[in-house]
Amino acid sequence: MNTSHRYPAPELKDVPPDIRERILQVQEKSGFIPNVFLALARRPAEWRAFFAYHDALMTPDKDASAGRNLSKGEREMIVTATSAANQCLYCVVAHGAILRIYEKKPLIADQVAVNYRKADITPRQRAMLEFAMKVCLESHLVDEADFPPLHAHGFSDEDIWDIAAITAFFGLSNRMASFAGMMPNNEFYLMGRAPRQK
Amino acid sequence: MNTSHRYPAPELKDVPPDIRERILQVQEKSGFIPNVFLALARRPAEWRAFFAYHDALMTPDKDASAGRNLSKGEREMIVTATSAANQCLYCVVAHGAILRIYEKKPLIADQVAVNYRKADITPRQRAMLEFAMKVCLESHLVDEADFPPLHAHGFSDEDIWDIAAITAFFGLSNRMASFAGMMPNNEFYLMGRAPRQK
Amino acid sequence: MNTSHRYPAPELKDVPPDIRERILQVQEKSGFIPNVFLALARRPAEWRAFFAYHDALMTPDKDASAGRNLSKGEREMIVTATSAANQCLYCVVAHGAILRIYEKKPLIADQVAVNYRKADITPRQRAMLEFAMKVCLESHLVDEADFPPLHAHGFSDEDIWDIAAITAFFGLSNRMASFAGMMPNNEFYLMGRAPRQK
Amino acid sequence: MNTSHRYPAPELKDVPPDIRERILQVQEKSGFIPNVFLALARRPAEWRAFFAYHDALMTPDKDASAGRNLSKGEREMIVTATSAANQCLYCVVAHGAILRIYEKKPLIADQVAVNYRKADITPRQRAMLEFAMKVCLESHLVDEADFPPLHAHGFSDEDIWDIAAITAFFGLSNRMASFAGMMPNNEFYLMGRAPRQK
Amino acid sequence: MNTSHRYPAPELKDVPPDIRERILQVQEKSGFIPNVFLALARRPAEWRAFFAYHDALMTPDKDASAGRNLSKGEREMIVTATSAANQCLYCVVAHGAILRIYEKKPLIADQVAVNYRKADITPRQRAMLEFAMKVCLESHLVDEADFPPLHAHGFSDEDIWDIAAITAFFGLSNRMASFAGMMPNNEFYLMGRAPRQK
Amino acid sequence: MNTSHRYPAPELKDVPPDIRERILQVQEKSGFIPNVFLALARRPAEWRAFFAYHDALMTPDKDASAGRNLSKGEREMIVTATSAANQCLYCVVAHGAILRIYEKKPLIADQVAVNYRKADITPRQRAMLEFAMKVCLESHLVDEADFPPLHAHGFSDEDIWDIAAITAFFGLSNRMASFAGMMPNNEFYLMGRAPRQK
Repeated sequence: MNTSHRYPAPELKDVPPDIRERILQVQEKSGFIPNVFLALARRPAEWRAFFAYHDALMTPDKDASAGRNLSKGEREMIVTATSAANQCLYCVVAHGAILRIYEKKPLIADQVAVNYRKADITPRQRAMLEFAMKVCLESHLVDEADFPPLHAHGFSDEDIWDIAAITAFFGLSNRMASFAGMMPNNEFYLMGRAPRQK
Repeated sequence: MNTSHRYPAPELKDVPPDIRERILQVQEKSGFIPNVFLALARRPAEWRAFFAYHDALMTPDKDASAGRNLSKGEREMIVTATSAANQCLYCVVAHGAILRIYEKKPLIADQVAVNYRKADITPRQRAMLEFAMKVCLESHLVDEADFPPLHAHGFSDEDIWDIAAITAFFGLSNRMASFAGMMPNNEFYLMGRAPRQK
Repeated sequence: MNTSHRYPAPELKDVPPDIRERILQVQEKSGFIPNVFLALARRPAEWRAFFAYHDALMTPDKDASAGRNLSKGEREMIVTATSAANQCLYCVVAHGAILRIYEKKPLIADQVAVNYRKADITPRQRAMLEFAMKVCLESHLVDEADFPPLHAHGFSDEDIWDIAAITAFFGLSNRMASFAGMMPNNEFYLMGRAPRQK
Repeated sequence: MNTSHRYPAPELKDVPPDIRERILQVQEKSGFIPNVFLALARRPAEWRAFFAYHDALMTPDKDASAGRNLSKGEREMIVTATSAANQCLYCVVAHGAILRIYEKKPLIADQVAVNYRKADITPRQRAMLEFAMKVCLESHLVDEADFPPLHAHGFSDEDIWDIAAITAFFGLSNRMASFAGMMPNNEFYLMGRAPRQK
Repeated sequence: MNTSHRYPAPELKDVPPDIRERILQVQEKSGFIPNVFLALARRPAEWRAFFAYHDALMTPDKDASAGRNLSKGEREMIVTATSAANQCLYCVVAHGAILRIYEKKPLIADQVAVNYRKADITPRQRAMLEFAMKVCLESHLVDEADFPPLHAHGFSDEDIWDIAAITAFFGLSNRMASFAGMMPNNEFYLMGRAPRQK
Repeated sequence: MNTSHRYPAPELKDVPPDIRERILQVQEKSGFIPNVFLALARRPAEWRAFFAYHDALMTPDKDASAGRNLSKGEREMIVTATSAANQCLYCVVAHGAILRIYEKKPLIADQVAVNYRKADITPRQRAMLEFAMKVCLESHLVDEADFPPLHAHGFSDEDIWDIAAITAFFGLSNRMASFAGMMPNNEFYLMGRAPRQK
């Protein structure tokens, strides 16, 4: 039985104004409110920290972006692959959708989620995902020897920090979503699957 | 790098007539030839055994069906869940598509593949998948104690054989598909996802 | 408690004639009927597919044998090692017996079953078993990099397909035997152990 | 080789004023600056989100505390146990120190880190740690059945959210500390170990 | 390549007299010298401790036997099962042979080694092996709850100590045999397999 | 609940004289009796074998020391690291204390126990611990290829035997301590932590 009944999401009208404002922006852009935005809003302080962290990693400001060159699609690829390793339904479906859209590749999310080694991605992206999986599953083994192969694919040390930090942050997200029984919005399942997706 | 270049699929015109006939039937019904049909046809004897086994489990004849009551959707649900455990891209995508169609539930395949415990399925189906996972991942632990809980959900001993055998057969299929680098046809990714799927 | 009481083997007189004929041949050759032949005969369609697959991999016809050079002993060595990894009592004991006989080495089956790395086998055979174990336990990791080391030991791509397919097929067999509680015939335990075994 | 040379901590004088202020407060209270405060400050936006999240979980405001009754010691116990499972040197040593101090038990941190099942803790605390470990290591398995045993020990649903969220947040922290090679300050190793620790 | 060339066994004539005496006794009784006796004799102090420990657990003196009722066969059954879990070739083959002889059951060793859950043993013996496997593979989880089920099968606390200690001691033996490349004497493979074994 | 009530330690006055003598020596040297000395004394034969083995590995006689150059600190480092892998509270705390004292490094034991890869040790010591961990966790994989890297760090074959044997012996000790619920003496937790520890 799903655990979500224990942690009911607040109604939009009841959340603090700063949170509501952000949610309305997302709704306007996406056409719906992704469930995580309301599910976490029951604890405003955690909500604010969560999305501040999310934004710092996924959409960093210009002045925080020196040497950080992961594309938006690559960031979502990391989320999709590591969330699949953590068996997080919400994040695989929601971020898989965003991955399809950013990469304009309708097939990529399922490939990355099931077995990224078989996915239609570049050797650079495969190296990125291998390192992300190491951080996800056995971070205690990360050491200096992991860096040169990533440098060889053009990743800077700041990029590598991003790979690690995105993996670590969504490991938090995966655990909370599985724990609290967050279900992905129905809209995510189909997004970006049509061949001509904008 | 994909291994499929080592085992090129024959062209349809070059396969033995009995195999070609079956493939043409599938093509007519589906609108395309699922890649596994051609990929395995390079060894006709294995092809024939593979599909004979497949049919015996997935579409048994009437006279072999006494006490066997798994629905077609349930059979595909077993394939999707256990293929995800084996990280088999071909089977998750192809059988996930068939699962969506049989169950007329556009969301179910992704749910079952990522984490069947969070899927919108019945307690009976969850018990079925838990047993399938045990056969998939630790068959040496199966014993008499596994049966009463399955009986309590209405499964007969023949149903339980079916759950085990479907899991075992697709474990073979998963290993061959991953080994030989079989990629799912593009068509499978989108099949059964539209809300009004027939 | 053993689960075999749920799936009683039919009597020989009650199985379809084509199956009975094959069983009688085996009995004549071996001096007894290996239990798997009767245990699976309760479902004739599965029996036929199972043994057709078995024969296609273990005793291929001449015209299907181009480039396929695994010896009979090597095929059984794969079965013994991977069945031990799956903790399948039936297959380790039955195929271990056949392995001893084909290889004329009374000690080899126990060595391969307990820890093939310590067995008295060639480096070529060890490489073969390492690849078989990868297909058995983590087939999602198989990729192009697995091939050159096998080629270096003289294995062709068709041999490698055989290693993978034998592993995959007996993975099916292991799961069914453990699930259905098949016990090896007493005869197998001693076969091929005497130093001068014919 | 440690990876920390790749991500040198900024000097205190170079960090943004809001961050510097907080760090100076910590230094005043503790007598030293825990390394994580400077190590993460190289990316101010992540620093702010990290410590906002930390505070929301570890020292929640009064108005966010309804139904949340984990003691400070229990919160640190969760961090110590799960950080040990993730083999994070920084967090085990630093939070183990804080655990000793809050609980006024000089031996507890080593016990909880090595094997919490042998630690001198209450059955309630053991149940808390078992659930934390499940969230840490197999969050995909969490379901409704985990709640009644925790309720029986007096944990509210808000407490259970806290257990899960603390585990999830420090899972992030563990991965970043191991990745970036953060070493615990020498001071932590000895803190709270003297029998008469205030 | 086997590591045994690095640690050549001394010749019998070169070992200290007390060790030689014991070895000659074993040779007289068994008809051959089990390899472990010479392999460990290169370090006499370790040899003496090893066999003193072995004897204290496997053939305890009368005055050390109060409340200790494991049969000799049960002791060897523990060794065979846990050595198989550790994949120790020497111990599975050598102690499997002794197990067959003590139990007068030619099939039992292979059954216990491959999957003790399928072996022809009593429920009491299965409970004994389950506990031994817990000590072997996850001793940190052993706790008070493990005792009542063992008591229910008639095991005393001294018997339970024996189960744990035999498992622990042969865990040492398994690691040394695998490390040092000890191969079982050929004689062991066939011992006790004939139906009328004395 | 701790299992130690089932196996109460004898009083010092009740143990055999040879055992009492050794215990009194240890008490004089350490200032207290480490719990393992009394806990195991309930079975004198096992006690004698245990400590004979311990001494043969940890404080070998001069005439048994040819080619054996591990320092006392290195020996304790192996114990601490592998006992942490086995989650043995007694051995991590007790031998961690001895490690701190021998190495005169107050921080080293916690580092080695939590994640030896992050510890302040030499590359030689890290290689030593990697091999010890292999013997501890997957001894069936040890083979000839493990030796050259150890030789390159100056370890002799006798040193390598010591690494393996210390690991194997304390694997026994870990299992017995966890099984029997041995708790480390309070004294161990603080020993060697003060910067000027003699």
